[in-house]
Amino acid sequence: MSLPNKRGARMRRSTAAGQIKELILTQRLKPGDALPTEAELCETLDVSRSSVREAIRTLSTLDIVDVRHGHGTFVGDMSLDPLVETLVFRGALSSDGSLEALREVVEVRLALDFALAELVVEGARRHHVEELHVLVDEMNAKAARGEYFLEADRTFHTLLYSATDNQLAEQLVGAFWDVHTAVAPHLGSASPSEMRETAQCHADMLAAVLRGDVEAYRKSVVEHYRPIQRMLEAAPR
Amino acid sequence: MSLPNKRGARMRRSTAAGQIKELILTQRLKPGDALPTEAELCETLDVSRSSVREAIRTLSTLDIVDVRHGHGTFVGDMSLDPLVETLVFRGALSSDGSLEALREVVEVRLALDFALAELVVEGARRHHVEELHVLVDEMNAKAARGEYFLEADRTFHTLLYSATDNQLAEQLVGAFWDVHTAVAPHLGSASPSEMRETAQCHADMLAAVLRGDVEAYRKSVVEHYRPIQRMLEAAPR
Repeated sequence: MSLPNKRGARMRRSTAAGQIKELILTQRLKPGDALPTEAELCETLDVSRSSVREAIRTLSTLDIVDVRHGHGTFVGDMSLDPLVETLVFRGALSSDGSLEALREVVEVRLALDFALAELVVEGARRHHVEELHVLVDEMNAKAARGEYFLEADRTFHTLLYSATDNQLAEQLVGAFWDVHTAVAPHLGSASPSEMRETAQCHADMLAAVLRGDVEAYRKSVVEHYRPIQRMLEAAPR
Repeated sequence: MSLPNKRGARMRRSTAAGQIKELILTQRLKPGDALPTEAELCETLDVSRSSVREAIRTLSTLDIVDVRHGHGTFVGDMSLDPLVETLVFRGALSSDGSLEALREVVEVRLALDFALAELVVEGARRHHVEELHVLVDEMNAKAARGEYFLEADRTFHTLLYSATDNQLAEQLVGAFWDVHTAVAPHLGSASPSEMRETAQCHADMLAAVLRGDVEAYRKSVVEHYRPIQRMLEAAPR
């Protein structure tokens, strides 16, 4: 219940940041658009140079603006990078090691994959079949050689969500992937058979997408988290 | 795919922030613990005063540290406040007004509520029945008088998740509530009958929790989003 007050306090402390956000809104700027220079902002907002600098730094940390040194300041992507940074650090900090944080991330990822299955299957089927095939082939080939395939795995899941018409879900899945990737090394490595199992689960997910079979997709998604869930259970608490 | 590089660049730019995070980890500090003073940090990390200040500001924006003016700097709560701030602003900025952002938030909330129903019912049943009853009574009473009950509504959902043993899910639901609350005013107001309907859905959710009936809980959760989904559909694009 304390969130709104705390955030309120933060906004009052950094009114220059609030003013810059207001300016972005009223001038209808979009991600990538240039902001006025520091000097212009001082003038327009009637605040000191150091206030503007502090505000820009705050907004840059939140990815609301993007400072490109030597080029100026632009409206940012408003990605979930700040969320990732906080979650990864919270994971590293948690008293029982980072595995508790990874368990929570896996649980939330599973929840999203399960509940949004219909949107994912529908969208992926129409837009990304070719690319998903290429990725599954890559995962199978790498698993057969005993090589990791994190990058292909991530691209596979990102693609699945990119056609859902829900940017928030897509970005959350990406953010959780980043947390997952950062924390997973503490888990120990997957065995060759687990790697092949995981690659096969992706093939099953794709097959379900091709058939437009939402229930089969849900089943293969659940299966696909089994190896990591087993590793989490086996890890020392 | 561009996230890791961008974040990498950000971390390289702010190595003092990285060093402070490292210090929190190695000294096993917990949220609420005091950090060394600015002067001590300069000394320990061998960086300039302005670098320390900039780093503290960055970490404060991410809620990794908490600056209490006149009292010092402490390890922060690592809440999802920064996520909320970015999402609310992104919502306000989106080209088709903020309603698209609210639709996405409702979809993700529904996904979490649906997929985590088992954990929620199990936990709430054991720990929060009394408080949930009080909140449902409050919602019913207010709806009958035509008054809003956002605060009770939020507390209801937060309580449901607080016993799930998944802090991330709990915080995400809280964060989405904040976004929801910030963006909802653009939607127009609920009718008295919609308010009574929403209050009744919470009563149904509680009844399902009491019976330990996960399927009935899922059904009433889905119902409970109907009024807002109708309002989103009716709103001009």
